[in-house]
Amino acid sequence: MKNFNLSPNNPIGVFDSGMGGLTVMREIMHALPHENIIYFGDIARLPYGTKSVTTIRKFALQTAKFLLSQNVKAIVIACNTISAIAKDEVQEAAGNIPVVDVISAGSRDATSNGYNKVGVIATPATINSNAYPIAIQKLNPSINIISQACALFVPMIEEGFIHHDALELIAHDYLDTLKKQDIDALVLGCTHYPLINDVVAKIMGNSVKIINPAITACNELVKILTNKNLLNPQQSKGNHRYFVTDIPLKFKENGERFLANKMDKIELVNLD
Amino acid sequence: MKNFNLSPNNPIGVFDSGMGGLTVMREIMHALPHENIIYFGDIARLPYGTKSVTTIRKFALQTAKFLLSQNVKAIVIACNTISAIAKDEVQEAAGNIPVVDVISAGSRDATSNGYNKVGVIATPATINSNAYPIAIQKLNPSINIISQACALFVPMIEEGFIHHDALELIAHDYLDTLKKQDIDALVLGCTHYPLINDVVAKIMGNSVKIINPAITACNELVKILTNKNLLNPQQSKGNHRYFVTDIPLKFKENGERFLANKMDKIELVNLD
Repeated sequence: MKNFNLSPNNPIGVFDSGMGGLTVMREIMHALPHENIIYFGDIARLPYGTKSVTTIRKFALQTAKFLLSQNVKAIVIACNTISAIAKDEVQEAAGNIPVVDVISAGSRDATSNGYNKVGVIATPATINSNAYPIAIQKLNPSINIISQACALFVPMIEEGFIHHDALELIAHDYLDTLKKQDIDALVLGCTHYPLINDVVAKIMGNSVKIINPAITACNELVKILTNKNLLNPQQSKGNHRYFVTDIPLKFKENGERFLANKMDKIELVNLD
Repeated sequence: MKNFNLSPNNPIGVFDSGMGGLTVMREIMHALPHENIIYFGDIARLPYGTKSVTTIRKFALQTAKFLLSQNVKAIVIACNTISAIAKDEVQEAAGNIPVVDVISAGSRDATSNGYNKVGVIATPATINSNAYPIAIQKLNPSINIISQACALFVPMIEEGFIHHDALELIAHDYLDTLKKQDIDALVLGCTHYPLINDVVAKIMGNSVKIINPAITACNELVKILTNKNLLNPQQSKGNHRYFVTDIPLKFKENGERFLANKMDKIELVNLD
């Protein structure tokens, strides 16, 4: 196993194929305000969900290598597709550096509270990959899982139609059947979905616990850094850097909505 | 110039990066029921709109080569991105084989009826490319053009939310400002949009002429084949073949909605 020299002063690396992972970064910034964090989004090559396993693993390893070159002390895979397909490869490349991913984190949450019936909503690519049912049933084979693809949520969120009546109409289309199945909890299986958490929670009602893997992944990261004595001792606000492979129109505007914070500087990097 | 041997019995080739071009094929099937038609959709490599000019030209030439190997007598570029970026390259590869494209056809329609103010709706990629304003103003520099990107129309159409109340709400968001500008005509600058023609026409009102480049391109094709004596003399119904580089979930179901016809057989082909 590779053995990197880890220091509490080193940054945390968070990565995704796009900007969705910023909802995970947001939780980390909130929970660990003194940490330096590096975000990486492979905007130029997204979406990953429709690409082959070989390609996704190649891209994930290129990103891991970039983060390692920035001396990260922990890596957070803030992307469902990469979590499902390349977690082990990233962990191997990272050696002794801890790697947290949203699917493992979300699945642990879904199986540790006595739920019998759990719903999963995600993009068609994630639902078709069966990643959450596989991860959840590995932890507890008796849990009943009901999946629902919600293809329009990502484009509506990226287009800023979050408080629009149309979103609620569409959400009813996707969620009403799920609601009738009396699930105990619902996993937000896409890093974009925390932005429409309120609409989803309202439709599902109080009896359904919403599981946000961004929060669970953040909690796991906090626990790991604490146990390993890797929390940054600095008292000043942490430094945050954003690296992307392309900066499309409205990226900053959208990114700041995902992050619920300003992005001071966005840096372009080419991994090819 | 390459000189291919053209016969009226040869098929017409229609191509797109995806399934949108099926709305153009639909018009051709309707106008020319005795023609054999080959459709090609590069599903595995879509979307083209966000790719580089070099890549789009490479992909378009690979497709043109495939169609030429099928002995087509005419090529229809049923894709706005390829029309804007690779029309000349495709025509050069096709030699004496006529090439019709949706942007040239739609722009001719927009400039040949005395309109002063023309709206264009399309995907963000097409709007940002400025392809329609460039093509229209080349034909008539005095026409005033107002563009509006409608990012959610394609995902909503592909997800089948065509007669959904949410579509009308979202369409109002995109079109109300355009309506206030008193345009004479509105170009449907995306091959998906004919499927929501009724919603768009209803919001824009009777005074705005809707220009559907699928219809205009089809009319141009009919004129060219007639002039060159290349219309198929057979009295039986034409044969239709569908070639794609990937067959995603719901492709047939969606494709048949675009085509308003059954797709008997979908054939996979690899261009790489």
